[in-house]
Amino acid sequence: MQKPNYHIFVCSSSRPNGQQKGFCHSNDGVEILMKFIEEIDDRELGGEVFVNNTGCFGICDKGPIVVVYPDNVWYGSVSPDDVDEILDEHIEGGNVVERLLI
Amino acid sequence: MQKPNYHIFVCSSSRPNGQQKGFCHSNDGVEILMKFIEEIDDRELGGEVFVNNTGCFGICDKGPIVVVYPDNVWYGSVSPDDVDEILDEHIEGGNVVERLLI
Repeated sequence: MQKPNYHIFVCSSSRPNGQQKGFCHSNDGVEILMKFIEEIDDRELGGEVFVNNTGCFGICDKGPIVVVYPDNVWYGSVSPDDVDEILDEHIEGGNVVERLLI
Repeated sequence: MQKPNYHIFVCSSSRPNGQQKGFCHSNDGVEILMKFIEEIDDRELGGEVFVNNTGCFGICDKGPIVVVYPDNVWYGSVSPDDVDEILDEHIEGGNVVERLLI
């Protein structure tokens, strides 16, 4: 199987029972996810970069959370406006976005 | 922030809109997730190992899917009965479970 070069996990507070609540869900988690999906498509990065929504990471005070693997880079207090910078700098540029690190 | 040594992602087909359907959801994805959570607790691995449910990985024909980062190891056709082996062999033993690799 062809693994993605980057696998981006966005907390949308998705609960296995489908319940729609939680810090990241209430603070644009789904909007961040959708913006990643849209931008990855626009930039034609679909073969190299994969994005998933997740359930809670247990560090809600640092949310909304975005984690990039296999780099093991954890971003916090992410807003939809940060998505372009994460893609420009980290995913396409190879440089971690220091100001968002947790 | 203290990052986990192993971060296990279990597809439960969790959709950002809370909808409860999808291949992994219909094939014990939630049961697999719950078994990981329970076993990690029983083995007192909570500080080192973290588990999250996710949305679809887009490879449903290989599901149910479990991905272990930062190792970047992808397991497919996972059943609840495989959880102990993944924890014994991979997470506690450091050896990939070859028969489940995709």
